[in-house]
Amino acid sequence: MADESQKWVLMVTAQTPTNIAVIKYWGKRDENLILAINDSISVTLDPAHLCTTTTVAVSPAFNQDRMWLNGKEISLSGGRYQNCLREIRARANDVEDEKKGIKITKKDWENLHVHVASYNNFPTAAGLASSAAGFACLVYSLAKLMNVQEDNGRLSAIARQGSGSACRSLYGGFVKWVMGKEENGSDSIAVPLVDEKHWDELVIIIAVVCSRQKETSSTSVMRETVETSALIEHRAKEVVPKRIIQMEEAIQKCDFATFTHLTCADSNQFHAACLDTSPPIFYMNDTSHRIISCVEKWNRSEGTPQVAYTFDAGPNAVLIARNRTSAALLLQRLLFHFPPNSETDLNSYVIGDKSLIEDIGIQDIKDIEALPPPPEIKDKVPAQKYKGEISYFICTRPGRGPVLISDDNQALLHPDTGLPK
Amino acid sequence: MADESQKWVLMVTAQTPTNIAVIKYWGKRDENLILAINDSISVTLDPAHLCTTTTVAVSPAFNQDRMWLNGKEISLSGGRYQNCLREIRARANDVEDEKKGIKITKKDWENLHVHVASYNNFPTAAGLASSAAGFACLVYSLAKLMNVQEDNGRLSAIARQGSGSACRSLYGGFVKWVMGKEENGSDSIAVPLVDEKHWDELVIIIAVVCSRQKETSSTSVMRETVETSALIEHRAKEVVPKRIIQMEEAIQKCDFATFTHLTCADSNQFHAACLDTSPPIFYMNDTSHRIISCVEKWNRSEGTPQVAYTFDAGPNAVLIARNRTSAALLLQRLLFHFPPNSETDLNSYVIGDKSLIEDIGIQDIKDIEALPPPPEIKDKVPAQKYKGEISYFICTRPGRGPVLISDDNQALLHPDTGLPK
Repeated sequence: MADESQKWVLMVTAQTPTNIAVIKYWGKRDENLILAINDSISVTLDPAHLCTTTTVAVSPAFNQDRMWLNGKEISLSGGRYQNCLREIRARANDVEDEKKGIKITKKDWENLHVHVASYNNFPTAAGLASSAAGFACLVYSLAKLMNVQEDNGRLSAIARQGSGSACRSLYGGFVKWVMGKEENGSDSIAVPLVDEKHWDELVIIIAVVCSRQKETSSTSVMRETVETSALIEHRAKEVVPKRIIQMEEAIQKCDFATFTHLTCADSNQFHAACLDTSPPIFYMNDTSHRIISCVEKWNRSEGTPQVAYTFDAGPNAVLIARNRTSAALLLQRLLFHFPPNSETDLNSYVIGDKSLIEDIGIQDIKDIEALPPPPEIKDKVPAQKYKGEISYFICTRPGRGPVLISDDNQALLHPDTGLPK
Repeated sequence: MADESQKWVLMVTAQTPTNIAVIKYWGKRDENLILAINDSISVTLDPAHLCTTTTVAVSPAFNQDRMWLNGKEISLSGGRYQNCLREIRARANDVEDEKKGIKITKKDWENLHVHVASYNNFPTAAGLASSAAGFACLVYSLAKLMNVQEDNGRLSAIARQGSGSACRSLYGGFVKWVMGKEENGSDSIAVPLVDEKHWDELVIIIAVVCSRQKETSSTSVMRETVETSALIEHRAKEVVPKRIIQMEEAIQKCDFATFTHLTCADSNQFHAACLDTSPPIFYMNDTSHRIISCVEKWNRSEGTPQVAYTFDAGPNAVLIARNRTSAALLLQRLLFHFPPNSETDLNSYVIGDKSLIEDIGIQDIKDIEALPPPPEIKDKVPAQKYKGEISYFICTRPGRGPVLISDDNQALLHPDTGLPK
């Protein structure tokens, strides 16, 4: 081991995307290893708009493993963190940095401590599965730091032990989490289906819904569903396997109609399973229902689907538009039905890829008020508006998998102290 | 036939209760005959608070079948009315009224027309399954008028052809609709399980929820569920048959804990099946969800269930309390969380059996405002109130089946003209 008196710090920074399932993961067959009761498929979201950046550092000066999330120190004592740290350490190899004169042998890692700093570029309160990107980034960056030689598939099986859906954030584009058969979970890994360039027409708009509801831990609800729902086993064994095959084919063929049908049906079935849980869980609220009605009505009026919707364990809608034109028309509809509160400025109401609002000629809040009702609303009653029900919209697209960030200026830990900057 | 010049009018008036399913009917195996894909069980509601009164009249002076609902003439040309009229006419017998000097032979009924006037003693807009009581009352009163000799079970099979759930309104107490096996539906009938005195501790509170939502025809949604839900067949074939057996036993034993578990689970599963339909259907809204949360929290804190909830094809909650004490405590909780709008008076906010509000010492709206939060709310955040989300509460109980009303003053048709009074 290098001389402790040197007090060197070795660091790695990585960026990992979040993902949204289009065939949902809900229910575990092993709580500790986090093994799912069915395969799932997700689309990775562009890290430019939603990602976690993590810096991991090692130094002989560190006397314990420590972690900071969004600048605040959090405990690493939880079983999920410990599982990830243990699995990565067990695979560590020799590391040598000739410039800095650092040499760490495989065996040294057992006694060295790490510092971890993690930052989400999106609001954590938004309920946008920050744990998926977070655990993926933790595992990916630690693996790079410790010179772990395994590929992203093997790493995904480790990230999975932090948060099930995290395994799917090890790749870009569309990703399948194969549930696997082994008791030790070794074959329960993420597999890339197509990269983000395969279906690059897709545009994604996330509607972050205002909610007074407290968040319920999805881990405990998932367990209650498996224990009490009379439908979840049928879903996992009979319904999902067929959908997985159909969804893979739809993705390969860029068949948006089938993709939409499956995505919406599977999101609704996941929420149906939550409702069939005792006590029942309602993740979607009236605003979520209104977004679904708006999309269903539009899709029906167009004859061919323009937008797929999917909702995770919360009221926020993830809307996948077939192309940029559809996305612009969707955003018009969303802004018409859900105008911002008067104190909100446009710049904070539509975030991410802002070019979409330029496409529809919206320059300020007044332009939103002037939007005409969508033509598919033929009812004689005036179209209903729900001001202030949406916090903001994020415009994004499918994105790439994890990357290393070589620019030291972007590291979240100080290169001399290994403490947050 | 009696001399037409006499212009006599012969009338019968009957009263039929509505009912609420505790094991739900959802999905038909025959759309025309209205044959269900599973058995269902309901509790009949006290006609003092929710019922239909129907007067049917026959006269040689009538030149067509006509019907008035709540004072407004409606068309009888629909297949469901025609099916009921045809089936009852086919079973008509000789009728003789010696006092009035009327004699109608079995064969005369083919050429005689009827007038029907029907009235619900509860707001039709409330979404409280008025069609169940309505068709049951139509069939029951016509059967009496035409001297049909069949028992209520056989009549239930005719009422079923008007509206599926109507068959269960032919009896009081708890009633099972046996789905049957025959293609012609002859064995798809209602069977009384226990009468309304068997479990007379139960108290029922209906929360009529304010809603901007348009009503969706449950007939078309039911069809869409059968055609598109991947879960409904499993529910009908695997889940419901077991629940029917358990529910019958719970009712026989007055086992409130099992009754509550099954009632809540089956209501939630019915709504889960609606959510699993393409496009998805949301009958419950945020207010419905809040009522469920309130009841679930209270039941959990008590250790033993105090209240069961069930929701039909709309946002209104039907809450079944184990006894009068529980019902009073429930009403306190409901009034605490859902105070009326300031312009509402107490007398129109809690209707039906008003003695329950006296039990809890509520005399005016100010007493509602002064209600303390329920003790099970231990959160540090102040308990949330949702003013104006409920239109009104109906306090009632399990009730009796159909009855004839002999008091001619209560008839809805004029005894001389056979037209609405």
